[in-house]
Amino acid sequence: MKIICQKADLLNGVNTVLKAVPTRTTLPILECILLDATTESFKLISNDLELGIESTVNAEIIKKGQIALDAKMFSEIVKKLPSSNVEISVDENFKTTIICEKSKFNISGQSGEEFLKLPKIEKDNYIKLSQPCFKEMIHQTIFSIAIEEVRPVLTGELIEINDNHFNIVSVDGHRVSIRYSKLENNTNNINVVVPGKTLNEISKILSSEEDKEVYIYFTDKHILFELNESIVVSRLLEGEFPKYEQIFSKDYETKVTINRKEFFNSIERAALISKDGKKTPIKINITDTNLIITSNTDLGTSYEEVNIIKEGKSLDIAFNPRFLIEALRVIEDEEISIQFTNPLSPCIINQIDGNDYKYLILPIRISS
Amino acid sequence: MKIICQKADLLNGVNTVLKAVPTRTTLPILECILLDATTESFKLISNDLELGIESTVNAEIIKKGQIALDAKMFSEIVKKLPSSNVEISVDENFKTTIICEKSKFNISGQSGEEFLKLPKIEKDNYIKLSQPCFKEMIHQTIFSIAIEEVRPVLTGELIEINDNHFNIVSVDGHRVSIRYSKLENNTNNINVVVPGKTLNEISKILSSEEDKEVYIYFTDKHILFELNESIVVSRLLEGEFPKYEQIFSKDYETKVTINRKEFFNSIERAALISKDGKKTPIKINITDTNLIITSNTDLGTSYEEVNIIKEGKSLDIAFNPRFLIEALRVIEDEEISIQFTNPLSPCIINQIDGNDYKYLILPIRISS
Repeated sequence: MKIICQKADLLNGVNTVLKAVPTRTTLPILECILLDATTESFKLISNDLELGIESTVNAEIIKKGQIALDAKMFSEIVKKLPSSNVEISVDENFKTTIICEKSKFNISGQSGEEFLKLPKIEKDNYIKLSQPCFKEMIHQTIFSIAIEEVRPVLTGELIEINDNHFNIVSVDGHRVSIRYSKLENNTNNINVVVPGKTLNEISKILSSEEDKEVYIYFTDKHILFELNESIVVSRLLEGEFPKYEQIFSKDYETKVTINRKEFFNSIERAALISKDGKKTPIKINITDTNLIITSNTDLGTSYEEVNIIKEGKSLDIAFNPRFLIEALRVIEDEEISIQFTNPLSPCIINQIDGNDYKYLILPIRISS
Repeated sequence: MKIICQKADLLNGVNTVLKAVPTRTTLPILECILLDATTESFKLISNDLELGIESTVNAEIIKKGQIALDAKMFSEIVKKLPSSNVEISVDENFKTTIICEKSKFNISGQSGEEFLKLPKIEKDNYIKLSQPCFKEMIHQTIFSIAIEEVRPVLTGELIEINDNHFNIVSVDGHRVSIRYSKLENNTNNINVVVPGKTLNEISKILSSEEDKEVYIYFTDKHILFELNESIVVSRLLEGEFPKYEQIFSKDYETKVTINRKEFFNSIERAALISKDGKKTPIKINITDTNLIITSNTDLGTSYEEVNIIKEGKSLDIAFNPRFLIEALRVIEDEEISIQFTNPLSPCIINQIDGNDYKYLILPIRISS
């Protein structure tokens, strides 16, 4: 194999595929990046068996071939090369020479044949989304996936396509986060659960530039993202995702309109009076004009007041402050609406003008 | 005690004194910040027994008194308060109330009497320096203090005042780093060794603004820094600092002029071909027009060429790349001069136009 490319292009590709290189593995070949110049285009490929990334790098292919190089060593070399042409050549013993200006490296690679290829995906069902929109949808929901794998399906997010509606949902047993959006193109109805890790990594690759798009393809077992010069393939999670719609009651006894930032700051302060991280419940007392937050532990007490507009009854309720903090942190609206039913039923955070998101959080039962 | 101050001023003071709050200690009172309003000015004080910081905060003192508050809890509360007036009041049971707009905290403090006061320093001998200059002098030398405490005096830096010369020196057994500067005022000759930790913390407080100054006072056992609204007091290290001047030979057999950045980048790349961090020696071969850097381990080989202007003999020599990298990283000049004597003698890095710094690095003996 022999190719010539620009350092900047190569670094770009390396940084992308590094996201699917496992840090610890029992299969050493997975710690490599495959440099694939067997076809007309030069590709970098990584694969941790759950997630695989292929990135095409603009290059002149002088001699076809492929080589698997240790990802850590190769990426560090590329990062530190001068900004110039890079020539990579491989001999029959997998000895790889990297030349850039007056720098020259010789490192040993492994046969590209040993590298585990990415699964082939049929490109039948697809949707098209704006990259910044999809990035935001992940950001605004991924914090409430389950961490523990008691029910593996909850460690991922549900992607739900119904007519031209595209929704993404996470559920962790204490709360539900939903982001809604609309699609430009029509496709079959789809219900798949994508691993949280995949969504985390894809959101790092997704651009914030308004005009960039991502194509997403679905099969029974896999999801494939096509964006920029890269392809990301991930396994789907198996198992039944909870029927979350049922717990979103439309009825309420109390509804408050509140400044999101003020509410967020007040809860953050109240949570400081907490011994075990942010697990000690904070109490919320809804009066006619104020929402009062109190917290009381061995460390001390705190008292916070936030102005509200109230509809319905007054209410005393308690929450794990972390759950409120994490939802309020990702919402961007200045004002939000929150509905309550009683001290033992979840609260629901709604958008005031629109229907972009919905958050449901279970309260904590406390002795009054 | 009762005081009122601005959140921004209070936060500023808290962030400064936090630098001398120990993270682990057997003396719980040291994990506190002392709020001292016993005199006409309101002060925050921290003390880890080696280093003490006192920061004056602009405040209205309504009732005199003092209180020791848990540094972590107090600093987190102050950080998260709204930008407004903060009222702090303490009752006879050391219960402390912090009020800011519609936020109110009650926390327990400890008697200020139990707090260990900072040592009293006689302000006889002092010098005046520009803060950004002193900050840079620390930055450009502190990396080569000794980490291990076989000889505790080497874990600090020598501050040396001779007539109006002010020098700062670190030595770790493999290398010497020196920064020189001049003083505006005259003082007695001084030779003290300041703990590395003190210099690290003081350099975080030192401003980068050109017109800010720091006053430094010396006693037999202590050094005191007066800067911005703060006083930093530190114990000095005891023991004899090595006579470093003797090993700076003026004679040389080889002298090269080289672009610092190119040399730095080349060594960084060569050091990548190294298994155990950056300890494997790199070889340097000085020819008439080039400095050639090579590195050769089980991982592979690297070859780098940098243009030089050479005086004197050609030479083959080897170094721990980390020692060269750390010195070259902090120098700001575009070109530097390096002198060599033979493969077993140290190299000396000099400034080309001026005498601001000097670095000496011992080579590694390798079989050729």
